[in-house]
Amino acid sequence: MSPHGADMKSEPNTAAAKARNLKRLRRIEGQVRGLQKMVEEDRYCAEILTQISSVHEALRGVGREVMRHHLSHCASSAIRSGGKKADGMYDELVDLMYTYTR
Amino acid sequence: MSPHGADMKSEPNTAAAKARNLKRLRRIEGQVRGLQKMVEEDRYCAEILTQISSVHEALRGVGREVMRHHLSHCASSAIRSGGKKADGMYDELVDLMYTYTR
Amino acid sequence: MSPHGADMKSEPNTAAAKARNLKRLRRIEGQVRGLQKMVEEDRYCAEILTQISSVHEALRGVGREVMRHHLSHCASSAIRSGGKKADGMYDELVDLMYTYTR
Amino acid sequence: MSPHGADMKSEPNTAAAKARNLKRLRRIEGQVRGLQKMVEEDRYCAEILTQISSVHEALRGVGREVMRHHLSHCASSAIRSGGKKADGMYDELVDLMYTYTR
Repeated sequence: MSPHGADMKSEPNTAAAKARNLKRLRRIEGQVRGLQKMVEEDRYCAEILTQISSVHEALRGVGREVMRHHLSHCASSAIRSGGKKADGMYDELVDLMYTYTR
Repeated sequence: MSPHGADMKSEPNTAAAKARNLKRLRRIEGQVRGLQKMVEEDRYCAEILTQISSVHEALRGVGREVMRHHLSHCASSAIRSGGKKADGMYDELVDLMYTYTR
Repeated sequence: MSPHGADMKSEPNTAAAKARNLKRLRRIEGQVRGLQKMVEEDRYCAEILTQISSVHEALRGVGREVMRHHLSHCASSAIRSGGKKADGMYDELVDLMYTYTR
Repeated sequence: MSPHGADMKSEPNTAAAKARNLKRLRRIEGQVRGLQKMVEEDRYCAEILTQISSVHEALRGVGREVMRHHLSHCASSAIRSGGKKADGMYDELVDLMYTYTR
């Protein structure tokens, strides 16, 4: 049913990290709804920008956890297997770091 | 005459810009729910990080529009009135730029 | 002698702000030479990355000061003159914020 | 056996990558001196901010290369050795990514 083959799935996250991230994402969803309300009510721009900044920060918290998991599971397997697999993983990681953590 | 209303409300946004931002924020809400689904399904980390990056980008789109409105309405009134009011606004703007646009 | 016409020059900065920025830029030049030495000596990567991060931070300090000056001099004139001049300045400012402060 | 030498030196970089980074850093040093000249000549703020942005971009280029080397040398040794050493390295990497690549 998944659009990706079994090997494109993440190795199962520890239940705790997954639950933490879901909790964070639900809070972020609430923050985004809060932003809609602020825009509807014509709230002061600086307040809206501050709230947008909080959402960015919360998203980076999720990103950090996903990246930590990526390194300790997906990436570490590739790195341990060495050779081209490891080289490809280094390139992917550098791209993720410089493109997607901002 | 004051650049900000007593209750710190923004001057009414043009209806069009407001509608655009609400539409964007609803799409962002959908993206965040999509992220929850991806985490629940243990999707590949690099895909989740890419999706997180899309949400950051979409949020910056909202921020840009709010900032544009802030400059052309709230900030311009303060700047036109000059003196301490203008000085305070320059400081606020620099803070917003360096703290909240990232 | 300048490649830009008189009206493309910044209005003269206050002497103090200019001196502060030159001092900062000389310190940044020293940091960049320090980085060259670190690379030559094969210093530990994490230390080099930390030092690169310090240079980014110091550059942002210069940027903040330049932006503060831009707002209170160049931008405020355009904003006060209103109309298309002001509109063009709002667009320029938003671009500067979202493109160049990162 | 340790992933890092006693003195925390990087494993020797390939000569090519090192030469590339030194060349980049010398160019960045030149850009910073150019910035000093621009400030001295009261050049238009938007030009200075654009130039500051180029230096940020060039620095990120150096950072990417250092990070690539860090992953393929220092980090991969720690990751291959597994256990606490690997765990410590994952934490270090996530910190580097989210703190120092911006």
